[in-house]
Amino acid sequence: MEDVKQAVLDSEPQKIEKVAIPPIARPGDSISAIDTPSLILDLDVFEDNLRTMQVLAERHGVALRPHAKAHKCPEIALRQIALGAVGICCQKVSEAVPFVAAGVRDILISNEIVGSGKLALLARLAKQAHMIVCVDNPKALEALSAMMVEHDANVRVLIELDVGQKRCGVQTPEEAIALVHLIRKLPHVSFAGVQAYHGGIQHKRSWDQRQKAADKTVRQIRQYLDAFYAASIDCAVVSGGGTGTAAFDVASGVFTEIQAGSYAFMDSDYAAIDWGEALSFRHSLFLLGTVMSTPTPDRAVVDLGLKSTSAESGAPQVADREGLRCVGVHDEHSILLASSRRHRPELGTHLRMIPGHCDPTFNLHDCVVAIRGHHVEAIWPISARGLSR
Amino acid sequence: MEDVKQAVLDSEPQKIEKVAIPPIARPGDSISAIDTPSLILDLDVFEDNLRTMQVLAERHGVALRPHAKAHKCPEIALRQIALGAVGICCQKVSEAVPFVAAGVRDILISNEIVGSGKLALLARLAKQAHMIVCVDNPKALEALSAMMVEHDANVRVLIELDVGQKRCGVQTPEEAIALVHLIRKLPHVSFAGVQAYHGGIQHKRSWDQRQKAADKTVRQIRQYLDAFYAASIDCAVVSGGGTGTAAFDVASGVFTEIQAGSYAFMDSDYAAIDWGEALSFRHSLFLLGTVMSTPTPDRAVVDLGLKSTSAESGAPQVADREGLRCVGVHDEHSILLASSRRHRPELGTHLRMIPGHCDPTFNLHDCVVAIRGHHVEAIWPISARGLSR
Repeated sequence: MEDVKQAVLDSEPQKIEKVAIPPIARPGDSISAIDTPSLILDLDVFEDNLRTMQVLAERHGVALRPHAKAHKCPEIALRQIALGAVGICCQKVSEAVPFVAAGVRDILISNEIVGSGKLALLARLAKQAHMIVCVDNPKALEALSAMMVEHDANVRVLIELDVGQKRCGVQTPEEAIALVHLIRKLPHVSFAGVQAYHGGIQHKRSWDQRQKAADKTVRQIRQYLDAFYAASIDCAVVSGGGTGTAAFDVASGVFTEIQAGSYAFMDSDYAAIDWGEALSFRHSLFLLGTVMSTPTPDRAVVDLGLKSTSAESGAPQVADREGLRCVGVHDEHSILLASSRRHRPELGTHLRMIPGHCDPTFNLHDCVVAIRGHHVEAIWPISARGLSR
Repeated sequence: MEDVKQAVLDSEPQKIEKVAIPPIARPGDSISAIDTPSLILDLDVFEDNLRTMQVLAERHGVALRPHAKAHKCPEIALRQIALGAVGICCQKVSEAVPFVAAGVRDILISNEIVGSGKLALLARLAKQAHMIVCVDNPKALEALSAMMVEHDANVRVLIELDVGQKRCGVQTPEEAIALVHLIRKLPHVSFAGVQAYHGGIQHKRSWDQRQKAADKTVRQIRQYLDAFYAASIDCAVVSGGGTGTAAFDVASGVFTEIQAGSYAFMDSDYAAIDWGEALSFRHSLFLLGTVMSTPTPDRAVVDLGLKSTSAESGAPQVADREGLRCVGVHDEHSILLASSRRHRPELGTHLRMIPGHCDPTFNLHDCVVAIRGHHVEAIWPISARGLSR
């Protein structure tokens, strides 16, 4: 047979043309027809999650500006905005490009932008959409203003405050006030307010500990707002908060908008925290894998690994099944251990798994398969996947 | 200024067209012009690494079949083959598609393939290239043969042995022999040999412990080969081995080909093992980031995070600089702590960092910037990025 194949290859080279990879699924397909590994979104749950957060924000008179770094998918952002979100956040300038192209007209780059190529891209986007950007450094602010002047573009600016995250952001009210004064002096930039985000407290497991941490963050923000008030600086926007602290953020009296992102999907890391009585987000996002080896009575190997799911927040969890847990995540495999032979799925079985951390998991996939009930409703491109510049 | 911008947006909507993201770099650019975050490959070191492994394999009369899952980049595979590699490995069927399109004609899918869509894709590739695939299950083998018959295609088959990895693979020589007999009965599949890979021992830190583990693996393989011999089964191929155990694998007398992949790049995980006197692989692969915030005298924040580098094998390490270490990797940021103010890089500084694990890191980038000395030589697409089906 080897000889036969060799002959075919040698005698008909002119017939060689690029093999196309078929689509991962088609609208109308049964979910059993979705190829694996894939990322699937249960639309009924997803839409419930969107409404829950939107209602929460509106009840407290706080704007919702969902973070698009969580999903990188314009179809998702458009649905958040349709429900009442004031716009979106992006973490990088290039990430904003497909959202602007899809029609989103109000984007906060919730991050500092350094580098002339990035600033030029921001300026071009600012001719098409209302762009807001964070600063924490006078030199970076001067470079931002100069690039906006060069392109005859305008951006609004939030001063980022370090409220305990120990990442970016000014360290003192004096620094913040100096930056406000500099913004006022510089052309084509205008002061809009502050960003105060503390990612580290979002995942604290206990409700009480999370509330205490959120209160501490709010007290730090108030120190800045008091200093602004004393300096007659009007701070229109206080942007921050996340899925884990949303219930406290909206009621805090300081935030004018919240930046939550994961609430739409609920990864296993967020699901593990104590949600109290206040909110009921459910898992809408799953990895779909195929059991491609069952070498022993208690072991099943699934065809998804580090190239389909991030694992720095822990291994993905098997959904809908008892007696089966993920004990290892390799580059292209997950190893499942069954508590007995009858818990081990058969070769070829499709399994749903819950990713540990949704943001970097979305960033591994070119599309998300949107399902409703037992059928595929749409395939949504993750258009900002890989756009980290 | 807000009013001015609003007016521009409202009055000239017809001028809105999609903003294009500029290329990350251009051939001939100085390396200082490369945008960040990006993945860069030092070609001089990379080519040294390729030659070192090729010479090692040839000295022992063992074939080198580098694993393309490490890089997913056809330009890299073509250079490995040009130096003498017999072909490549891919871990998934879809991953092989861009390599076949680039002209690679001998590909081992070093993995089990389950699912009719994937088998059909394999059959179509097998009409254009010599495809080899692993099996560890009789039902999967029957489905493979049936699909090859349907497409009038042929594949060679390796039986995967579980030699301690506890992932896929048959557990006993009896199982392996039963599969050989089944292969011989079925049409359009032919028995080529065995795959015996143990990923878990590749990263054992000490040379002696790694050698002992490699020896144990070899003893397990010999049990299978002895059983084959007793059953008059000719096993032409024994494929396996990796970067960490390559020096032992080539000298073992059992492997006919080795599947190393990371040797070309050397991530920090592999660099941390004791290499003895035998081999001298060096770092050729780096992440390039920009310092985008310097909020305190000892802290610098770089614009690359989990969406540019995998972190399940540890944070990326700062290259070429002392007194600066990475203490946190967020979605789009790395936090660096400087041992003193003078060790902290200035805002806007480009820094090279060494990824912890090269395979999933390549899978995050659309291209790798190939540099020689201080200039960009080429931009190579990572064409198989995201192809995990």
